[in-house]
Amino acid sequence: MDYTNSSNADQLPQSHLQIAMEVHRVVPPPPESTIRKLKTTLKETFFPDDPLRQFKGQPTRKKWILAAQYIFPILQWGPNYSLQLFKSDVVSGLTIASLAIPQGISYAKLANLPPIVGLYSSFVPPLVYAVLGSSRDLAVGPVSIASLILGSMLRQEVSPVNDPVLFLQLAFTTTFFAGVFQASLGFLRLGFIIDFLSKATLIGFMAGAAIIVSLQQLKALLGITHFTKKMGLVPVVSSVFHNTNEWSWQTILMGFCFLVFLLVARHVSIKKPKLFWVSAGAPLVSVILSTLLVFAFKAQHHGISIIGKLQEGLNPPSWNMLQFHGSHLGLSIKTGLVTGIISLTEGIAVGRTFAALKNYKVDGNKEMMAIGLMNMVGSSTSCYVTTGAFSRSAVNHNAGAKTAVSNIVMSVTVMVTLLFLMPLFQYTPNVVLGAIIVSAVVGLIDIPAACQIWKIDRFDFMVMLCAFFGVVFISVQDGLAIAVGISIFKILLQITRPKTAMLGNIPGTDIFRDVHHYKESMKIPGFLILSIEAPINFANSTYLNERVLRWIEEYEAEDHKKQSSLRFVILEMSAVNGIDTSGTSFFKELKKTVEKKGAELVLVNPLGEVMEKLQKSDESGEFMRPDCLFLTVGEAVAALSATIKVQPSINVV
Amino acid sequence: MDYTNSSNADQLPQSHLQIAMEVHRVVPPPPESTIRKLKTTLKETFFPDDPLRQFKGQPTRKKWILAAQYIFPILQWGPNYSLQLFKSDVVSGLTIASLAIPQGISYAKLANLPPIVGLYSSFVPPLVYAVLGSSRDLAVGPVSIASLILGSMLRQEVSPVNDPVLFLQLAFTTTFFAGVFQASLGFLRLGFIIDFLSKATLIGFMAGAAIIVSLQQLKALLGITHFTKKMGLVPVVSSVFHNTNEWSWQTILMGFCFLVFLLVARHVSIKKPKLFWVSAGAPLVSVILSTLLVFAFKAQHHGISIIGKLQEGLNPPSWNMLQFHGSHLGLSIKTGLVTGIISLTEGIAVGRTFAALKNYKVDGNKEMMAIGLMNMVGSSTSCYVTTGAFSRSAVNHNAGAKTAVSNIVMSVTVMVTLLFLMPLFQYTPNVVLGAIIVSAVVGLIDIPAACQIWKIDRFDFMVMLCAFFGVVFISVQDGLAIAVGISIFKILLQITRPKTAMLGNIPGTDIFRDVHHYKESMKIPGFLILSIEAPINFANSTYLNERVLRWIEEYEAEDHKKQSSLRFVILEMSAVNGIDTSGTSFFKELKKTVEKKGAELVLVNPLGEVMEKLQKSDESGEFMRPDCLFLTVGEAVAALSATIKVQPSINVV
Repeated sequence: MDYTNSSNADQLPQSHLQIAMEVHRVVPPPPESTIRKLKTTLKETFFPDDPLRQFKGQPTRKKWILAAQYIFPILQWGPNYSLQLFKSDVVSGLTIASLAIPQGISYAKLANLPPIVGLYSSFVPPLVYAVLGSSRDLAVGPVSIASLILGSMLRQEVSPVNDPVLFLQLAFTTTFFAGVFQASLGFLRLGFIIDFLSKATLIGFMAGAAIIVSLQQLKALLGITHFTKKMGLVPVVSSVFHNTNEWSWQTILMGFCFLVFLLVARHVSIKKPKLFWVSAGAPLVSVILSTLLVFAFKAQHHGISIIGKLQEGLNPPSWNMLQFHGSHLGLSIKTGLVTGIISLTEGIAVGRTFAALKNYKVDGNKEMMAIGLMNMVGSSTSCYVTTGAFSRSAVNHNAGAKTAVSNIVMSVTVMVTLLFLMPLFQYTPNVVLGAIIVSAVVGLIDIPAACQIWKIDRFDFMVMLCAFFGVVFISVQDGLAIAVGISIFKILLQITRPKTAMLGNIPGTDIFRDVHHYKESMKIPGFLILSIEAPINFANSTYLNERVLRWIEEYEAEDHKKQSSLRFVILEMSAVNGIDTSGTSFFKELKKTVEKKGAELVLVNPLGEVMEKLQKSDESGEFMRPDCLFLTVGEAVAALSATIKVQPSINVV
Repeated sequence: MDYTNSSNADQLPQSHLQIAMEVHRVVPPPPESTIRKLKTTLKETFFPDDPLRQFKGQPTRKKWILAAQYIFPILQWGPNYSLQLFKSDVVSGLTIASLAIPQGISYAKLANLPPIVGLYSSFVPPLVYAVLGSSRDLAVGPVSIASLILGSMLRQEVSPVNDPVLFLQLAFTTTFFAGVFQASLGFLRLGFIIDFLSKATLIGFMAGAAIIVSLQQLKALLGITHFTKKMGLVPVVSSVFHNTNEWSWQTILMGFCFLVFLLVARHVSIKKPKLFWVSAGAPLVSVILSTLLVFAFKAQHHGISIIGKLQEGLNPPSWNMLQFHGSHLGLSIKTGLVTGIISLTEGIAVGRTFAALKNYKVDGNKEMMAIGLMNMVGSSTSCYVTTGAFSRSAVNHNAGAKTAVSNIVMSVTVMVTLLFLMPLFQYTPNVVLGAIIVSAVVGLIDIPAACQIWKIDRFDFMVMLCAFFGVVFISVQDGLAIAVGISIFKILLQITRPKTAMLGNIPGTDIFRDVHHYKESMKIPGFLILSIEAPINFANSTYLNERVLRWIEEYEAEDHKKQSSLRFVILEMSAVNGIDTSGTSFFKELKKTVEKKGAELVLVNPLGEVMEKLQKSDESGEFMRPDCLFLTVGEAVAALSATIKVQPSINVV
C-alpha cells in the first residue's frame, strides 16, 4: 500500500480502494451503568492488587484461615518454621541487635529524647512487627530522618532542655498520631499517597537530610556546648565557627579516629558484602572501645562529654502521657503526619526492595497497617516513631535473615541489655554516638543514582536538587513540600501542554507515524494527520485548539506553494485516554473551524470513554457519522481518498 | 491475516510469516540537544500561538509597523475606519451607556464603594481598552462578581462605614495589584493559568455567586437597615428573618414591580434577540421612572432609601491614595490576586466567545496585558476593578458594535453624565439598584449548561456542585479554591490510576483493539497484549507494576484451564506520552518479573521521548534489542509467532 505518491486520488492503486470498501466500523463501547463504572473506578483506585482474589471460591473454613493469615502473616510462615531457619534468624538477629543498641541511643539523642527511649523503641515495635508484618527482611527500629524531623519540629514550640517531660509527652503523642495516620492510610487503602514521593525527590531529600543530620553531629564531634537550635546549613556552620573557643581537641581526636574506623568498616562491607559483619559490628565495637577508654583514662574530666547514668528496666507504660488536648495538639498532629509519611515511605521502600530481591510480595497497604499499629502500640510503651530502617534491614538481609524471627531475637537482646547492661553505657562518650550517626547517614547520599537521573531526565534532576537545597537551606519539611509540589506541577504541565504530532505514512505499509521521528514517513497531500497524546480536558482544551489551528495554518502556508488544498484533518485519538466537558466543546469548536476552512474533521480510534462522551454531547450525531470516524488512520486515508476520486470536481474547489 | 485460530504457531498461514520477515524497525528519534529540547518545551509552554510568526521574513519597516499594531490594535483597524462603521458604533455605544450608568452605580454599591466610583470606572477604562484591546465586542466596565469579591474581602478587615477613606484607598490599591497581576500574567505568557478554571467550575461558581449577590440585594429590596455583614446563605437569610420589623412595604412593592419589569424585559430580549434594546434600556428606564416617582411622591420620607447627593465632575486622580505599605498591604495583594483572576477569566471568556461568533482571533496573553494596563491606569484615576462584562458585551454585540469605538462612545456618554447629569440621580431609590443587580445576575445561573454537564460527565457535575455549594455556604474565594482543587485532583487521579487494556486481534485484519470494547476481537494464545494509556511516572509506576502483574496472573489462571503457557507480554506504548526515572525503573522491574515467569517483555511503538529515555537508562541495551521492539502490534505478533515455530520444543516448556 502506498499513499504517498498519490497526489491525485485517481492515481491510487486498485488494491487500495478495495481496502477502502472493507473499512472496519468504529463501534461504541458496550453500555455500562454509572454505578458499575463507579465500582470499577473505585476498585482500580483502592484495590488495584485485588486482595480478595485468593478468597474466591474457597470453602468457609478455608476463608477464615486465609483471613487470619491475612491479618497475622506470622500464621502463614509460623507452622512451617524450622530449626534451620531459626539458626539463620538468630545470627542475623544478634547482628542487628549489635547495630540497634548504639543506633537506638544515638537516634534518640538526635530526636532530643533521653537515650533510653531509643532502646525502648528497639524492643516493643519489633515484636509487634514480627506478628503483623509481611516482610521477611525488614529490621524495625528508630531511623535517623524521622528522629531528626520529630526532634526539630517539636523543638520549635517546646524546649527539650527546659521542659523535658512535656517534650517527651509530645514525642509519644506524635508517635501515636503517626501510627494512627499510617494505619488509616493502609486501612483506607490510600497507600498511593506515598507514591507522590518520587525516587528523584527521595534521593535529593535523603542527601539533604544526611547533610543536616551530620551538621547536627558537629556539636558532639567538636565538643561544643553552646550550639544553635536551628537546623539549616547557614546557622549551624556560623554557630560552629562562632564557638571555636569551645572546641575540645580530645573530643575531636577521639571523634576523628572512630569516624575513620566506622567509615573504613562501612567501605569494607560495601566492597565485600560477605564481610557484612564488619560494618554491622563496628558501632558496637566503637561504643565498647570508647567506653573503656573513657573509663580507663577518666576522660570525662578532660573535656569529653559522656551519656551519664541510664535508667535500668523495661519500657514503662506511657499511655497516660499521651496528650489529646491543650495548645500543642496541633503541633503533635502535624509532626505525626510528617514523620508518619516519611517513616512510612522508608519502611515501604525498604520492604519492597528486599521483597523484589527475594521474589516475594509485600502488600503496601497491609504493611502500612502493620507499621501504623506498631507505632500506636509503641506510643503507649515509651517508644517513639519507628519503621523499617534501611541500613539495619540491609545488614539483616546480608546476615541471612529468613523470617521476622530475627526481629524477635533482636528484641530479646535489647531486652537483656535494658534489664542488665544499662550501667555499662554510663561512660559512653557522646562523640562516638555522633560518629555512629554520621557514618550511618553518609550512606543516604547516593551520588551514582543522582548521576543516573541526570543522564535520563533533566527535569527529575532539577526536582532532586530542589529537594536537596530546600532541605539544606530552608527546612526538612519545606524542602520535601517544594519537591513534591514541583513534581506535581510537572505532571500538570504535561497535561496542560500535551504533545501533538503530525503523522505520515511509512512507505509500503499502512502504518502512520510521527514525521519528525520517522524520517522516512511521507505526508499525504490533502490530508493533515495529527495525533494528540493526552487526555483532553479543561486544562488543555484552549491550548489544543490553538495548537491544532497552528498546524492547519502551517499546512496551508506550505500548501500555498504546492497548490493542493487541505481536504481532511484526521485526529488520531488512540492516546487520548480521557475527556471532559471542555474536551467535548473543543471537538465541536474544532469541527466548526475546520469546516470553515473547507476541510473535514475525521476522528480515528477514539477509546471507549472518549467515544461515549462524544456521543452524549453530540446531539446531531455529527461526530458519529461513519464517514468521519475510522478505526485506523490507514483505513481513514484509504476510504477518504476514494471519496475524493468519486467527486473529482472537489480538487478544483 | 488471521492470528486467532493459530493456537499453535505451525498453523499460521504462509502470508503471515511473510509479514514477519518484512518487519519495520523501530528507530530512535533524531538526536536533539538538551538546549533545543528546552527551547521547544518553552515555546510550546509560553508561545503556543507563535505570536512572532507574522514578523518572519518581513522588511524592517514593516516589522516596526507590525510591532506597533501588535501593541496598539487600534492602529490595525483605525486607518480603515469608516462613517458606516461609526454609525453602528454610535448606536451600540449609546445602548451600552444606558446600561452602564445604572449598573455602574449598582455594582459600586455592591463593592461597598461610593456610587460615583462605579461611573468613574465606566469612563477611563473603556478608553484605555479601546486603544490596547483586540476584541471588537468587549464592553468594559465594573462587573458584579469582582465587585462582590472586592467588597467582601476588604470588609473582613476594614469597615466601609466607619473608615470609608481607608476602604477606598484599599480598593484602589487592590485594583492596582489586580492590574499588575493581570498584566504580568500576560507579559510572562502565563495565561494558561486561567485555563485551570474549567467550564464546569465556572458554571457552578457563577451560579453560586449570583445567589450570593442576589441575597445581598435583599437589604435594598426589603428596605432593611440592620443587615448582616456576612456573605453566606445562612447568615443572610437568618438576618433577613430576624429583622422582619424593618421590612418596608413601600420598598418591597416598588422593588417587586421594577424587578418584574426588568425580568420581563430580559425575557423578551432572550426570546427575540432583535429586541435587545428592551433589556438594554430597561435599567435606565427603571432608574428614571423610579427617580421621578420618588421625587413626585417624596417617597424618601415614606421609608424608601435613596442614593443621596452625588459629586459632580470627572474622575479625580487617585495615585496618591495607593498604599504600598502598612498593615493592610497583604490584604490588598490577596484581594487583587483573586479579583484579578476572576475578572480576567470573565474578560477573556467573553472576548473569546464573541471572537468565535464573528470569526476573528483574540490573543489571550495580549488581552491580559490590555486588561491589566487598563486596571493599573484605572487605579490612579479613581476607578476600581473593571473587565469585559458579559451582559454588557452581549448587548453591545446585539446592538451591532463593529469596533472598540463603541467603548469610546459609551465613555463619552458617561463623561457627559458625570459632568452635567449627576444631580438627577440624587433621588434614585436604592431598591431599584438592587432590582437591576438581581435581574443582571439571574443570567449567570445557567441551568441548561448544568444539565448538559450532568449528561456528559458526572464528575464534572460534581465539581460544579462543589463550586456552587462552596460559594453559597462557605465563601466566594473558598468555593472557587475547592472546585479548582477537585478539578486538579481529578487529573492527578487519572494519572495515578491510568487505564490498562487487554488488546485482541480483530479477525481478518492486523488491527488490535481493546477486547472489552471490540467484542469481536480475539485473544491470541501465548500472547498477553496490553496497552497503557498514560505517561508512566513516579505517581503511577507502582500501580502499573501491580496492575500488569494482575493481568499476567489472571492470564495464567485462565491459562491453567487452556494448557497453553504465556510466552510474550506485549506492551503497546503508543499512548505513553512521557516517562521519568521511576518509569524507566518500572520497565526494568517488569522485564525481570516477566522473565521469571518464563515469558518475554516486548514493547511496541514507544514514542520519541520515551524511547530516548529508555535507551539512556538501559546500559545493556536489552530494551532496544530488535526482537523485543516493534512498530505495530501486528508485526510483533507475526514475527514472534514465527520464532515460536522455529523453536517447536518451547511449547512444551
